[in-house]
Amino acid sequence: MEATLLNVFVVPADKEAEFLENWRRTSAVFQEGDGLIEAHLHRNTGVGDETFAFINIARWTSAEAWRRAHAEYPPTEYDIEGVVGHPAIFAPVADIYGPSRVSAAPLEEWLTAAR
Amino acid sequence: MEATLLNVFVVPADKEAEFLENWRRTSAVFQEGDGLIEAHLHRNTGVGDETFAFINIARWTSAEAWRRAHAEYPPTEYDIEGVVGHPAIFAPVADIYGPSRVSAAPLEEWLTAAR
Repeated sequence: MEATLLNVFVVPADKEAEFLENWRRTSAVFQEGDGLIEAHLHRNTGVGDETFAFINIARWTSAEAWRRAHAEYPPTEYDIEGVVGHPAIFAPVADIYGPSRVSAAPLEEWLTAAR
Repeated sequence: MEATLLNVFVVPADKEAEFLENWRRTSAVFQEGDGLIEAHLHRNTGVGDETFAFINIARWTSAEAWRRAHAEYPPTEYDIEGVVGHPAIFAPVADIYGPSRVSAAPLEEWLTAAR
């Protein structure tokens, strides 16, 4: 069963560049392997709570594939001082649509629209 | 500009039902107002880090609309003992696709597939 992986990161401001460099290297490894379908890294814009600098929303072919990939290649971003990740598999419990909804945009379009 | 709102919740296990009841009531209020496009509440499955019981992935017409709605109706789920939210507006920084990707499923389909 496909699995949604959400990873919430605490990253000190002066470690952001190092974090991004390591996250991209980790992603490149997972891109070459089995299991990763897509990953969308988001950065906190500073509007609202600032506890978490980055959140990754990803899709894997299964929770087991996600576990295996991380056992084979432990992400190096966790080795950076002050970086704390909270990776876990989540399942949907409620979907709400407001009156402002015109149409459901494809995921890729939505997640990249603000670029 | 459309805004992606991510809200990461700490919810004590014995408060989950109360949290869900309040979250749904809050969502119903926002559904009636302006600004909310869609909200997708996710529950931690217990695979991985268990710090955060729920994460909401939502889309609003703008960060300002999100702020205004919350000023007019402060979500009651924050009044529950032990519940801590971390709502903030995020922007995409990286999109990665693995070899397992066959096609980009519409957001709605992806987010509700595990149901």
